[in-house]
Amino acid sequence: MSKFWSSAVKRSDPYIPGEQLNDPKIIKLNTNENPYPPSPLVLDAIKKEADQSLRLYPSPTVDELRNEIADYYGLGKDSVFIGNGSDEVLAFSFMAFFESGRKIRYPEVSYSFYPVYAKLFNIPVEEVPLQADFSIQASDFHSSEGGVIFPNPNAPTSLYLQLEAIEDILQHNRDRVVIVDEAYIDFAEESAVKLLHKYDNLLVIQTMSKSRSLAGLRLGFALGSPELIEGLIRIKDSFNSYTIDRLAIAGGIAAMKDKVYFEATREKIKRTRIWATQELRKRGFNVLPSQANFLFATHPDKEASSLYEQLKENKILVRYFNKPLINEYLRITIGTEVEMDTFFQVLDKLLKK
Amino acid sequence: MSKFWSSAVKRSDPYIPGEQLNDPKIIKLNTNENPYPPSPLVLDAIKKEADQSLRLYPSPTVDELRNEIADYYGLGKDSVFIGNGSDEVLAFSFMAFFESGRKIRYPEVSYSFYPVYAKLFNIPVEEVPLQADFSIQASDFHSSEGGVIFPNPNAPTSLYLQLEAIEDILQHNRDRVVIVDEAYIDFAEESAVKLLHKYDNLLVIQTMSKSRSLAGLRLGFALGSPELIEGLIRIKDSFNSYTIDRLAIAGGIAAMKDKVYFEATREKIKRTRIWATQELRKRGFNVLPSQANFLFATHPDKEASSLYEQLKENKILVRYFNKPLINEYLRITIGTEVEMDTFFQVLDKLLKK
Repeated sequence: MSKFWSSAVKRSDPYIPGEQLNDPKIIKLNTNENPYPPSPLVLDAIKKEADQSLRLYPSPTVDELRNEIADYYGLGKDSVFIGNGSDEVLAFSFMAFFESGRKIRYPEVSYSFYPVYAKLFNIPVEEVPLQADFSIQASDFHSSEGGVIFPNPNAPTSLYLQLEAIEDILQHNRDRVVIVDEAYIDFAEESAVKLLHKYDNLLVIQTMSKSRSLAGLRLGFALGSPELIEGLIRIKDSFNSYTIDRLAIAGGIAAMKDKVYFEATREKIKRTRIWATQELRKRGFNVLPSQANFLFATHPDKEASSLYEQLKENKILVRYFNKPLINEYLRITIGTEVEMDTFFQVLDKLLKK
Repeated sequence: MSKFWSSAVKRSDPYIPGEQLNDPKIIKLNTNENPYPPSPLVLDAIKKEADQSLRLYPSPTVDELRNEIADYYGLGKDSVFIGNGSDEVLAFSFMAFFESGRKIRYPEVSYSFYPVYAKLFNIPVEEVPLQADFSIQASDFHSSEGGVIFPNPNAPTSLYLQLEAIEDILQHNRDRVVIVDEAYIDFAEESAVKLLHKYDNLLVIQTMSKSRSLAGLRLGFALGSPELIEGLIRIKDSFNSYTIDRLAIAGGIAAMKDKVYFEATREKIKRTRIWATQELRKRGFNVLPSQANFLFATHPDKEASSLYEQLKENKILVRYFNKPLINEYLRITIGTEVEMDTFFQVLDKLLKK
């Protein structure tokens, strides 16, 4: 502790992201990146933008990209906010809609950045236990004091919550903001975006990091009623006028335009997910029914922590959370078919031990 | 006001950046961008990085770029923090080192984002009046309650404060952080970086937006003692793990490496500044002695606001602040010699009216 640190630094408990090892031989199934590269049109757009215009500030309002996303979802531009990855959008949302004196609710097993934001912004929390099967019970989120946030599909469980349940949560929190964090929604049934016309308390947050293969470019966005979006803009414009650089704007626009590539890669991942789930089950794993680009699995006879270590020794990186309730599970990102083949070959070797 | 907005949104008073008009015919002397393009090596590095690796998250610790900047200044990596533009570094610094209950001090005429941050984070302020010639009096900043922040050179005045004065402020705030915002320092005498080995309460903030022609890429950084840098890292890792994208990292490293290009362009701008100052004075302007890449000037017989409007009608954009004390001044970014020639031609036409 330094005498120069503010109380915010002192109470903070920073997020620890998944390992980023610089070994190209490693099969990286640990941070839910897309195994396929971004659309070639995205790379072309970025290279074209990498010219002398970089000396100029980007658009502070990012209107062109907002319009592109708005069109994709049939919304108006004033229903779209863009941030530097969905983590920044989440941080701004905590600042814009949650309050120091009022308890917010999120699932006990969930994205581990939520408690980090809550500590930073001094927002009290109620962590809501999940059902025994890791599912979310909507009624547990009724009448929250300060608001609600949950991922759908949930991470790291991979489970999808039906829109009827989300609607039930929205109806029972009319005066509070309900944030649905849809980082993985493009691999699932359907987005809560279709509820936006009915609920002005709904904020949907998405990212280009997963389904659009752009984790390295840092683009996330929020969709909501114009008054919620205005709240986010006011925070952002009090924090950093230009959060999205020129290259990311160009790349993001191209990514939204190339629907054919987007559909093709997400279908490939969904097919690999079905196959990989079956393969894990054949080997005795209990695998939750995933609607994300990762699997959450446990083996009755093998310790998750040692499987994690052994896989790592064999140059395969998966995610292990040493936390209550989930410390017997591994979170395995869906890789290419070739990567998953290698994963299963190594796994078979380890299971025989 | 929306019922969904937090008290932070309600009390916020967002920053309004300079106009970004999309007319290529406009001569843009309003947001202190560099008139010269980024180094060709920067553009090459970005194009090379725009490949399939964009599917992967960038380094959360940005060590390679931190090392490059550390080397440039003869510091250790743990004395360098990187942010998404110096505005983000400033925002994180307000969170890390300033406190809700303690008044901070900054000059009354200064970067207009400081009061915006203060409102957002609910930090009380003492705006310190400048001398009649717009200079900063060091003793006015002694024994601040909550910390000190000022730009050097100051904006929009363009005036440079000698290191002895800065050292005096540091010595009289031993238990508080003193932030020297050096956005324009590469056009001035010398950086306060050389005081870092003596003062653990000093944080120097710089940007690649101005002297390295990279406003469109969003790169800023802070230099300070490891304990201050650790405070910033804790805030950033509680906010957004990956604030710097892969392309910006590659471009930033190339920008720091290409010292020859950097020296050449900043010398050109300094030469044009001397010449443009003389030309303005010939035309009756009072021009403050600038050590930045802009001039701050007033004319005894011409209203600044109408000059601003008339220049704009003639496709020349300068910055006008309709604020007490400075509403008779124009802030004019140093453009290329050709741009400044056109500026003076138009100005001569207007002054004859």
